[in-house]
Amino acid sequence: MKNLTEGNITDAVLKAIDGTKDARAKEVMSSLIRHLHAFVKDVQLTQDEWEGAIEYLYDTGQITGPTRNEFILTSDTLGISSLVDIINSNPDGGTEASVLGPFYIEGSKMVEIGTNLIGDSEGEPTVVSGIVRTLGGDPIEGAIIDVWQTAANGLYENQDPEQPENNLRCKMLTNKDGYYEFTTIKPVSYKVPTDGPVGRMLDLQGRHAWRPSHLHYKVSADGHRNLITEVFCEEDEYIEEDAVFGVRKSLAVPYKKISSEEEAKKYGISSPFYRVEFDFELETL
Amino acid sequence: MKNLTEGNITDAVLKAIDGTKDARAKEVMSSLIRHLHAFVKDVQLTQDEWEGAIEYLYDTGQITGPTRNEFILTSDTLGISSLVDIINSNPDGGTEASVLGPFYIEGSKMVEIGTNLIGDSEGEPTVVSGIVRTLGGDPIEGAIIDVWQTAANGLYENQDPEQPENNLRCKMLTNKDGYYEFTTIKPVSYKVPTDGPVGRMLDLQGRHAWRPSHLHYKVSADGHRNLITEVFCEEDEYIEEDAVFGVRKSLAVPYKKISSEEEAKKYGISSPFYRVEFDFELETL
Repeated sequence: MKNLTEGNITDAVLKAIDGTKDARAKEVMSSLIRHLHAFVKDVQLTQDEWEGAIEYLYDTGQITGPTRNEFILTSDTLGISSLVDIINSNPDGGTEASVLGPFYIEGSKMVEIGTNLIGDSEGEPTVVSGIVRTLGGDPIEGAIIDVWQTAANGLYENQDPEQPENNLRCKMLTNKDGYYEFTTIKPVSYKVPTDGPVGRMLDLQGRHAWRPSHLHYKVSADGHRNLITEVFCEEDEYIEEDAVFGVRKSLAVPYKKISSEEEAKKYGISSPFYRVEFDFELETL
Repeated sequence: MKNLTEGNITDAVLKAIDGTKDARAKEVMSSLIRHLHAFVKDVQLTQDEWEGAIEYLYDTGQITGPTRNEFILTSDTLGISSLVDIINSNPDGGTEASVLGPFYIEGSKMVEIGTNLIGDSEGEPTVVSGIVRTLGGDPIEGAIIDVWQTAANGLYENQDPEQPENNLRCKMLTNKDGYYEFTTIKPVSYKVPTDGPVGRMLDLQGRHAWRPSHLHYKVSADGHRNLITEVFCEEDEYIEEDAVFGVRKSLAVPYKKISSEEEAKKYGISSPFYRVEFDFELETL
């Protein structure tokens, strides 16, 4: 009988999955097994530490459900989601991707260009606009902009029973110039949820849970690669230390303060207000 | 602003956890981050594959609860639990450890040496006995043997509502000679549960879910290191390909077939029956 040892068990596991028919699945799982085993060997993981890892996964599973995914938050806070975004981000240029995050919901209401999303929300009025283009610079008409953000209290609508449904979320079609525009409040920096296993992990790691202020976007258009990204406020105090590593230089833009009452009136808001311009470039499929 | 790239994001995450006060926690988490990132880079993980991984973890969390832990089964079937056992197995000798598995329950009934556990269970009668010793060979009196096994249908009592509570489980104290003995049925080879994410993974990997026949043991004694292990039937057809990599050469023993009616009578059973002898050596703390 072959005896399993620290030296040969990894090969034994790789041999066990040798019958994997899908070549890519085999490649991915072999690499995962190699790296997980190498991790255990490198640190000579103890039984207590293994139990701690199982407990972390157990607790993460218990707190996770249809409205909260602590596994995604774990991946986000370990920089894995962002690494995957970077690896898969437009090899041929175009707007960089960033994390989806755990607060996206399908089915936001489709609104007209120029819609004011503020409603009863507190916060600093902000006009957001831009163009959706191809990599070649041609405007894309009928692209869908799907946007979501926090309220002034740092919570998304689906985290906060006090906010009306669909608050500070919308979908919009670009016009023939590829243009989109909406009026909202300035998103705020906020903490990722810390009442679960990720909070305990961040504590242990001596880290804060803050994310710099940002707008989330899903941008899609027929014949183009879907884009999931975020647009950040470049002056935010956490811009250099996002808890989920979502910031890219190309995605951080100024929030220009406009004091003109006349300009504000055009948007039906009061001055001062902020103006954010961000153009998206989609890869053609 | 520093831009995150495939080349520098791992260092950015390591920098973020630089404030980890516990030196060992920092070592373990740094290594985990390095290996997980290296895995993602090595295979150039796609967004769809990342989503698949999150879905696996989500489903594993949903099926896991107080009576079933699919995270442990995942660790077992990827050989990680066994690797941890091997790494932490008695550096100074003594009985090797093996996986706890997901079916242990606290609080089995304490019974007398020689107890017959068969009750209404079907199966081949088997007498199990041995000595608990120190590494120096001295018998340990009052060591606790905590044992559990499957019924003839391949299910543990806590998987099977048809079995009486505590079926084929017990605790026992060794006598002054370090001796333990109980009569039971021969454990059978069985499949780990395949109705969850682990089952889907094994399918994808073209693997079977069988474990060779074994008895589970937790052995503890004052002043000695606790031992969690398994004792296997060396003739089992799956002895070389345990789905959870728990087999060690030193833990596989013969099940000797005894045909003597007279011998059987001593144990209040009928012949033929099996005899299994296994001695445990515990490390002194």
